[in-house]
Amino acid sequence: MSRITLLGTGLIGSFYTEALHGNRGRDRVQVAYSRSEERARQFAKKWDVPSVTTNLEEAICDETTDAVIVALPNHLHEQAVCATADVGKAVLCTKPLGRNAEEALRMLDAVEKAGVFHGYLEDLVYTPKTIKALQTVKGGALGKVLWVRSRETHSGPHSDWFWDKELAGGGAIIDLGCHCIEIARNFIGKQIRPVEVVCWADTQVHPIETEDHAIGLVRYENGAIGQFEVSWSFRGGMDLRDEVVGTEGTIWLNHWLRTGMEVFSAVGTADYVAEKAENSSGWMFPVGDEVGALGYVGMFTDMFGAIEKRQSPQENFYDGFVVNAIIDAAYQSIRTKQWEPVLLPIWRGSEGSNTSVILSDYDAEHVIVKQELMSDGLTKLILKNKKTGKVTDKTIR
Amino acid sequence: MSRITLLGTGLIGSFYTEALHGNRGRDRVQVAYSRSEERARQFAKKWDVPSVTTNLEEAICDETTDAVIVALPNHLHEQAVCATADVGKAVLCTKPLGRNAEEALRMLDAVEKAGVFHGYLEDLVYTPKTIKALQTVKGGALGKVLWVRSRETHSGPHSDWFWDKELAGGGAIIDLGCHCIEIARNFIGKQIRPVEVVCWADTQVHPIETEDHAIGLVRYENGAIGQFEVSWSFRGGMDLRDEVVGTEGTIWLNHWLRTGMEVFSAVGTADYVAEKAENSSGWMFPVGDEVGALGYVGMFTDMFGAIEKRQSPQENFYDGFVVNAIIDAAYQSIRTKQWEPVLLPIWRGSEGSNTSVILSDYDAEHVIVKQELMSDGLTKLILKNKKTGKVTDKTIR
Amino acid sequence: MSRITLLGTGLIGSFYTEALHGNRGRDRVQVAYSRSEERARQFAKKWDVPSVTTNLEEAICDETTDAVIVALPNHLHEQAVCATADVGKAVLCTKPLGRNAEEALRMLDAVEKAGVFHGYLEDLVYTPKTIKALQTVKGGALGKVLWVRSRETHSGPHSDWFWDKELAGGGAIIDLGCHCIEIARNFIGKQIRPVEVVCWADTQVHPIETEDHAIGLVRYENGAIGQFEVSWSFRGGMDLRDEVVGTEGTIWLNHWLRTGMEVFSAVGTADYVAEKAENSSGWMFPVGDEVGALGYVGMFTDMFGAIEKRQSPQENFYDGFVVNAIIDAAYQSIRTKQWEPVLLPIWRGSEGSNTSVILSDYDAEHVIVKQELMSDGLTKLILKNKKTGKVTDKTIR
Amino acid sequence: MSRITLLGTGLIGSFYTEALHGNRGRDRVQVAYSRSEERARQFAKKWDVPSVTTNLEEAICDETTDAVIVALPNHLHEQAVCATADVGKAVLCTKPLGRNAEEALRMLDAVEKAGVFHGYLEDLVYTPKTIKALQTVKGGALGKVLWVRSRETHSGPHSDWFWDKELAGGGAIIDLGCHCIEIARNFIGKQIRPVEVVCWADTQVHPIETEDHAIGLVRYENGAIGQFEVSWSFRGGMDLRDEVVGTEGTIWLNHWLRTGMEVFSAVGTADYVAEKAENSSGWMFPVGDEVGALGYVGMFTDMFGAIEKRQSPQENFYDGFVVNAIIDAAYQSIRTKQWEPVLLPIWRGSEGSNTSVILSDYDAEHVIVKQELMSDGLTKLILKNKKTGKVTDKTIR
Repeated sequence: MSRITLLGTGLIGSFYTEALHGNRGRDRVQVAYSRSEERARQFAKKWDVPSVTTNLEEAICDETTDAVIVALPNHLHEQAVCATADVGKAVLCTKPLGRNAEEALRMLDAVEKAGVFHGYLEDLVYTPKTIKALQTVKGGALGKVLWVRSRETHSGPHSDWFWDKELAGGGAIIDLGCHCIEIARNFIGKQIRPVEVVCWADTQVHPIETEDHAIGLVRYENGAIGQFEVSWSFRGGMDLRDEVVGTEGTIWLNHWLRTGMEVFSAVGTADYVAEKAENSSGWMFPVGDEVGALGYVGMFTDMFGAIEKRQSPQENFYDGFVVNAIIDAAYQSIRTKQWEPVLLPIWRGSEGSNTSVILSDYDAEHVIVKQELMSDGLTKLILKNKKTGKVTDKTIR
Repeated sequence: MSRITLLGTGLIGSFYTEALHGNRGRDRVQVAYSRSEERARQFAKKWDVPSVTTNLEEAICDETTDAVIVALPNHLHEQAVCATADVGKAVLCTKPLGRNAEEALRMLDAVEKAGVFHGYLEDLVYTPKTIKALQTVKGGALGKVLWVRSRETHSGPHSDWFWDKELAGGGAIIDLGCHCIEIARNFIGKQIRPVEVVCWADTQVHPIETEDHAIGLVRYENGAIGQFEVSWSFRGGMDLRDEVVGTEGTIWLNHWLRTGMEVFSAVGTADYVAEKAENSSGWMFPVGDEVGALGYVGMFTDMFGAIEKRQSPQENFYDGFVVNAIIDAAYQSIRTKQWEPVLLPIWRGSEGSNTSVILSDYDAEHVIVKQELMSDGLTKLILKNKKTGKVTDKTIR
Repeated sequence: MSRITLLGTGLIGSFYTEALHGNRGRDRVQVAYSRSEERARQFAKKWDVPSVTTNLEEAICDETTDAVIVALPNHLHEQAVCATADVGKAVLCTKPLGRNAEEALRMLDAVEKAGVFHGYLEDLVYTPKTIKALQTVKGGALGKVLWVRSRETHSGPHSDWFWDKELAGGGAIIDLGCHCIEIARNFIGKQIRPVEVVCWADTQVHPIETEDHAIGLVRYENGAIGQFEVSWSFRGGMDLRDEVVGTEGTIWLNHWLRTGMEVFSAVGTADYVAEKAENSSGWMFPVGDEVGALGYVGMFTDMFGAIEKRQSPQENFYDGFVVNAIIDAAYQSIRTKQWEPVLLPIWRGSEGSNTSVILSDYDAEHVIVKQELMSDGLTKLILKNKKTGKVTDKTIR
Repeated sequence: MSRITLLGTGLIGSFYTEALHGNRGRDRVQVAYSRSEERARQFAKKWDVPSVTTNLEEAICDETTDAVIVALPNHLHEQAVCATADVGKAVLCTKPLGRNAEEALRMLDAVEKAGVFHGYLEDLVYTPKTIKALQTVKGGALGKVLWVRSRETHSGPHSDWFWDKELAGGGAIIDLGCHCIEIARNFIGKQIRPVEVVCWADTQVHPIETEDHAIGLVRYENGAIGQFEVSWSFRGGMDLRDEVVGTEGTIWLNHWLRTGMEVFSAVGTADYVAEKAENSSGWMFPVGDEVGALGYVGMFTDMFGAIEKRQSPQENFYDGFVVNAIIDAAYQSIRTKQWEPVLLPIWRGSEGSNTSVILSDYDAEHVIVKQELMSDGLTKLILKNKKTGKVTDKTIR
């Protein structure tokens, strides 16, 4: 059992606590810090938290807790993380780790120097579907992963600081792209180096300084592409989908809007439908178990299990740093309108990943380029002559 | 925290333990009973259970546990339940409660006389989607529930005793129909009396004495219909769907084969895909979190939460008894080829439920039968004259 | 090219004409009959029909046409069909053929005695998906068909006469059940005799004399079951789905509400969304090509192709008669609350269809009851001893 | 009725003829040209074509036909188009128009100088779903279109010349990207100028010189983005999906793999399942009416209708030229690794399209940035002060 200090009582702090205290969980938020006394009181009541405070240092140092969860706005991560490292407690920080790679690197240094446990709370790589899909990919069912599309779009975040470039470190990319980038990185393989990024972004709808819509491509050393699609201007709810294409197969994940639960109501419902739902009558698509579906349950199982086993979790601060470095390259690409390198002063993965794929021979002279069953029942082959390089087609029964 | 004796180490015992010990659960299986020493040993190792035995009484009486879960074949429920009631422990029994209503009633009597906690382990009313859908229906979004279809079909159960009419108490109806009947009963309202049943069943495929396919209709006093569809001859995986139709809306739930996770693999996977999956290459539809999706997690949260709060859980032995009584009527209808009454010597719900629905007036003389927007942009009304009863149509802009 | 007299200019007449005149069709409605002069004029203008009349006989006898389509209310079918047979023209009659089997049989007699082409306009067996699925079943991909569910439910028909028991011949069963029954019959095999029916029906919502919701089971001589589900009280649009289960496979067809076109609009659309759509903002599910998706295009291709080739179409008046006979049995079952035989004074299919299914041997002594890959990677077999009949399970690698 | 010369008897020629001769179509392929005598004969027999030849000029000049359809490999388009223009017949050319914009421009010049009808056979903007979706967008249901994703990926084309860079003009982009680009352009508005393109492409799997996978972004003058995703390395069938996001709504179209038809077969089917289907047992997703679903039927309805009405069709050679110009920019961007301008020597759309979007006021001082219903039932607003620009959040009931 872990006793936890939670820093921050906003939407993300609520989701975390619901995941921890829900079902028959054995971990407990013991101390909660909020910037507002009023919110602190309400939070304590709602989630049955014994102790609340508006003093950050007090919350971190509280002797009844052994781990600190940082669920604060982006500009407050570094301070909170460093203060926790100083007192030698395990620290778990919400996404994104930093507002940029420089900040993230300082946090990584701090926890590694202090020798404390560090977990990067990237929940979306822990959804039940993602965990199962990652196993499937690792088991070889997709062959080599060639491309991953990860998409998170909705109508925009719920707190003011997200919309402030300075406090958040950016717009939809820093808010949502961090998820998509790390999802793709998990599928492609964390040991594969992300090499360069090209990114489009625009402020299409909202009266803000930062981007409310962006599409980016991250090229990895082995030739694989991670594609992120993020928006604060999407209409229809929260669109949370991943697609993985490999040489041998494909995976499609839909985490939110089409998960096998469909409700039509002519009179509508007074209840909450789902996070970011836009309508409460007509056809609606709720999610049965939101904290499960968003990966919070799986994430804390990994985190607190790792703490108990004195291991590193699946996602740690080094991962958070890599994600920030990729985001930095994306912002740079928006400015320069060209591909930009991912700058990684520290690289802990492998070097020189292979881009090649092995092909099947048709006979001694030809490799098979592709084959397809046609509507007339015949099979059509595309062959390449190994010597001449000439491509021909051939029909067989 | 609950310390549990688990009776039975088959598939259902494994699912229960996975739900209890999984994630960061605080309850523990302390003692497991198996009829086979070999299976007991394997189970203890796999799930980290401190103590195993092949002596049923020893397992029930073990002083380190305060609750007993009965996960035995159907013909062994009564004995195990009564023995647990005798020692005054909380008893949780898997579905179906009895092989028939008579057996179920004796078990209900036993636990009520002993004054012990009794939970009926009907997992499928606790799936995340079902819990959310029941809230939606209770909130009024569907108006009055008119019809519920609940379907569970797959290629047949995995242990021999299921296929033996005497040991199981029947075939696909007793095995799967118990789920479907209780799902419908939850949506229609447990206080509404089930009145009569008509049922078709046949042994279409397998060389067995009992039915491997059945469709039944349960009529409730308020006019609502619960429809169950069960089969051991379905091909394609496990089809687990519910549909609810009310005067104001509709709910469609798909728990297994189409939940937003789709995998194609040309090379196939060596891994387990999902319970009852029939193919391991081509297009596959795994489930991210099986024990969650099947309701085991939500079920034990309710059960052990109720024990702690000294309340009755959502599903108790009385519910199990009602389900058995409905199944008895279904088997009787198969024999007589007509509607058969549901015999409930004890009825604890309401009496005289209303079958009527309130209609909207169009004007002083007419009620609206229906209205529809046509493809030419006009609205077509069907009206009924309150006095003459004559139905007419009318087109308005 | 066919020149057509169309009798009736309501919704169904419009759909028929849209199918005939749409795309690059070569057949033409030459003469249209309407009971109302006003509607006749509007129809002629909208669909570019050269000649309209309110005189039924004139329309049928018009010398410029060689085929007559009956798209009139149910109580007017017999008169129109007989008048057409009398003048020796091809006659195509909308569904249901008669209000009951007696009426249908008289119509069948009339056309057969006159020796004219007769087509039964059961559009839903001609949808692109149904045509393809029937080919798949005939090709053997599903083995023996065991069960077909066909469902058509919506918020009720758009013209007054449907709601009048006398004029229509019944309620939702005669209106919608005729589709579902014939769909199932096509999948099971038209040569297999329908033996008996059990049916529940009720007037759950509307202030009418006939049923607005019904579920029926039709048992065929080979043991297969055709299940129809019809309602005028469904909310959410038009639910048009079929499911086919065979010994070797499964087919799921969704013709209307989930066909791969999904639209969300916060502001809504002023346009028509789809037949029976209930909402015009929020999430909507239009159908791209309604007359194609409903089978009208495929149906007329078969009908006029058959006329040209002097063949009988896929659906003729004998089929319409069989459907009416099954519906009669359903209405009888509602009254008697038991299974009722399907009375077929004329049966043109096969006799004595086999109910058996062939099983695979495991070894000399055992047949395989079922097998399943379990989550531990082992395969579990259920075997039956051929001599003793004993069922056992066995785990293999 | 049109009498047609068809040049080319490969897969695309077959699809075209199936669309023209299918159902009750009134147009006819009168003359077919094939490079191979054998294929010409087979084609004539299969599709009942009166006259075939291996002489291109003869086919074009044949006096019995009034329109010529060019269904030849890409490198033969220009010659065939110019020869047809010379004889003054209507010319319909398959996609892509040219191998590059220069070639396309010459063809546009030729037909315009000759004053003949010219149709660009871009079938995928004519699918039933796309036609309906374009109406929905034009009706305003989505507000301003911000982003369109169009995806076409499969396992690669079936004839050798596609794989030869010289003959085809490129790889997956020229083969499939032409569809995606024109789909996006239709949704965004053909009058809006495409400004610049960034594109990633790679040869990830096949032993060929051209790209087998590419992702591109096309920026339009009004700020909208058209995203194309094309691949010859996708596994699982043909993935044909479009997504449209506007300020007020969203459209999702799935044309092939998930259209409401799902088949499971344990024994498999000997029949053709669908174009590019990769498996013939397990779960399969056929399409009911392929030539309809791919837009061929709607396309020829527009084309031959336009010829009869002496109008220009929805897609003409100018559109084909614009698509080629965008593809040229994409290939340039792959080389330079930066955004590249779309070079349009002739621009016939509007100039100076606006990028702005109108926002709603909250009160005199604030505009609404966004609002969301939270799980506690309260609504959270993000507001921006019109003078200071400061963003704040506010919770209301």
